[in-house]
Amino acid sequence: MNNNWSVSAIGRRLTERCDALAVFSESTDALTRVYLSKQHRAAHQQVAQWMIGAGMRIWHDAVGNVCGRYEGVRAGAPALLLGSHLDTVRNAGKYDGMLGVITAIELVARLHENNQRLPFAIEVVGFADEEGTRFGSTLLGSRGLTGQWQDDWLKLCDVNGVSLAQALEQFGLPVSAISRAARSAQDFIGYLEVHIEQGPQLEAAQLAVGVVTAINGAKRLNFTINGQAGHAGTVPMAQRQDALVAASELVLAIETIARARNVVATVGQISCKPGAVNVICAQVHMSLDIRAADDRQRDQALTDILARAAQISEKRRVQISEACFYQSDATPCDVTLQHYLQSACDKVQGQSLSLASGAGHDAMAIAQLCPVGMLFVRCAGGISHHPGEAVLSDDLGLAFLVLDDAVRQLAESPISG
Amino acid sequence: MNNNWSVSAIGRRLTERCDALAVFSESTDALTRVYLSKQHRAAHQQVAQWMIGAGMRIWHDAVGNVCGRYEGVRAGAPALLLGSHLDTVRNAGKYDGMLGVITAIELVARLHENNQRLPFAIEVVGFADEEGTRFGSTLLGSRGLTGQWQDDWLKLCDVNGVSLAQALEQFGLPVSAISRAARSAQDFIGYLEVHIEQGPQLEAAQLAVGVVTAINGAKRLNFTINGQAGHAGTVPMAQRQDALVAASELVLAIETIARARNVVATVGQISCKPGAVNVICAQVHMSLDIRAADDRQRDQALTDILARAAQISEKRRVQISEACFYQSDATPCDVTLQHYLQSACDKVQGQSLSLASGAGHDAMAIAQLCPVGMLFVRCAGGISHHPGEAVLSDDLGLAFLVLDDAVRQLAESPISG
Repeated sequence: MNNNWSVSAIGRRLTERCDALAVFSESTDALTRVYLSKQHRAAHQQVAQWMIGAGMRIWHDAVGNVCGRYEGVRAGAPALLLGSHLDTVRNAGKYDGMLGVITAIELVARLHENNQRLPFAIEVVGFADEEGTRFGSTLLGSRGLTGQWQDDWLKLCDVNGVSLAQALEQFGLPVSAISRAARSAQDFIGYLEVHIEQGPQLEAAQLAVGVVTAINGAKRLNFTINGQAGHAGTVPMAQRQDALVAASELVLAIETIARARNVVATVGQISCKPGAVNVICAQVHMSLDIRAADDRQRDQALTDILARAAQISEKRRVQISEACFYQSDATPCDVTLQHYLQSACDKVQGQSLSLASGAGHDAMAIAQLCPVGMLFVRCAGGISHHPGEAVLSDDLGLAFLVLDDAVRQLAESPISG
Repeated sequence: MNNNWSVSAIGRRLTERCDALAVFSESTDALTRVYLSKQHRAAHQQVAQWMIGAGMRIWHDAVGNVCGRYEGVRAGAPALLLGSHLDTVRNAGKYDGMLGVITAIELVARLHENNQRLPFAIEVVGFADEEGTRFGSTLLGSRGLTGQWQDDWLKLCDVNGVSLAQALEQFGLPVSAISRAARSAQDFIGYLEVHIEQGPQLEAAQLAVGVVTAINGAKRLNFTINGQAGHAGTVPMAQRQDALVAASELVLAIETIARARNVVATVGQISCKPGAVNVICAQVHMSLDIRAADDRQRDQALTDILARAAQISEKRRVQISEACFYQSDATPCDVTLQHYLQSACDKVQGQSLSLASGAGHDAMAIAQLCPVGMLFVRCAGGISHHPGEAVLSDDLGLAFLVLDDAVRQLAESPISG
């Protein structure tokens, strides 16, 4: 390994490119880059330049993704797809998404530098929309590439009332041509995505990288709890139908059940009415977000929660109703790709840790086309979607080496079945 | 007992007068009558007319209370004070306050009709402000009468920016003369107030009236719980510092401790930050209202609650802080007055029930001057401060008979010590 391949040198180079991309932002004091914006175009032009420098043929597809291809030994062969997204949430960090694209380009650059060709092509994609910041719906870029694009999204509007259809046309992407972004399953042998963990598990294990087993499925529900208002001074405790006390019992039950069922469950929103210091709560609204690497596990936990809610309802003489407003099923990562990443981790950092992804990723969409694998990189405090998002430069170097090793294993022995 | 003294006839007459007062309102679709308003003046003029009709000498005092006096056997003797308040909350019911004034006038009217004089005078007062609806501070009328008026209240402003000082002057009450409203302890032998219960205990016991043992003391606190925000999908349950789960545990602990300590405690307000469906709660604000007939009991319960909060804080690695922003000590009712009311209840409804008042009343202020007693009247569903406030006409008749009987007992054997 020459000095150019040292962990710290690679880490520095990847860090510099993350920094360089962060300047393409709506405002100078916070990083915000949304789909079909001027900053989208500018960032993609920069990424295209880097791709060209890495010896790739580049194009911008019909939904605004930036794509590059590095041919394998045999021109026109199916490709290993690498990448992630280039859009951000509002007031974002510099690594969420961008890191996966930059690491992929670096991998191709090294092949190119050494004039190496693999038995498959490598394509790198920078997805134009994963976060859904502008139009509310997520994974627009990757779902354009998989052909899962839905025409009714075109009516979605941003905060200024600009529809997705108008924004595409203004960006120079004719709505009539969207379907040309769709690729076929035959184009790809697999997909690998490097991404920051956005959680605290690698940090707790003192490891730079970890291998994703699955992207968790999720359900989101709203609960309404109706009790009876009353004077805080005059209604005896035994005669109350306090909606907030019932809600509190449900929040604690959700925690207990989540631990027992090995899922994560979160009540992130709560509000009460009438909301006066001297009035017993008549009504509580609260949300539930529940996720698991296995859909059956998630649904069993939810069944337990609803059974507990029914008990609380009866015991406390309150009405509890719920409505599910979002569902996504779990995306398992390919076992062979996991195995290659694990053995690369063993080599590079002496051990491997496998973990589920609690957050959604482009890999969820790409799994419709081909086997997917993901490598997580430790981030400070598990903090993400925040300017405080931070990674160690050396961790990026290690992540690169793991990705590179996994790709080389794949070149020696492709995915079976 | 002639027909004029029948429960239903008296009840009807009292009900009609409550209805008649309810027309003096800011708006026609809801009853709202605040301190120093046109409606205040009009309602007090009506009450003064009724007082005059009952054979009383009337005056409007220096803070806007309407007062009437019916001399006893010996002119100028100390008086038994009867009454309650004539102001309302916004969108109020027709009985809270007014009932006590109207019942008192009716009692004097019957004495006058029969040309009876008691060993003491009777004064009836309609307090101009108990609810504090306009200026935020409560009991302005009764605290004017007791000499507890505080000059810094004059700077309090209503929602239109009108100060209490301006409003008094505009109403024709010179600020310089306020102290003239103050009466001395020698003026009164005691105070009796009839009021709706504003709670469900009499209804649960199927009784028309009950005797108040004490007006509960209260403390109000705000709690702040600081945890750690995090991604709802990526942070394992065991690594969370969820402020809302901690708050929920505290809400349930408050309920358990309140039951064990025989106090009432209510969390009426809760809010959380950042308040997103997919983010673990970083911060919760919640209120606590805690009341007991005995201040030591209240404070012991609060000590228990704070000890439990400290345990939760340590177990869940969250910070919990609290600030007390309101305190009122309990007002015990005079034992002799309670005894007279109880024995009157025994006679009139066959049994007596004693209960603490969870809500505050003018009697709290008057207790600074003389012994106080209160009689509660059942109200439908315990509902008050709401247009749905309702009482049975016959219950008003029974309340009148109990008050009348207690006053006659007092005439035979005055309060000792």
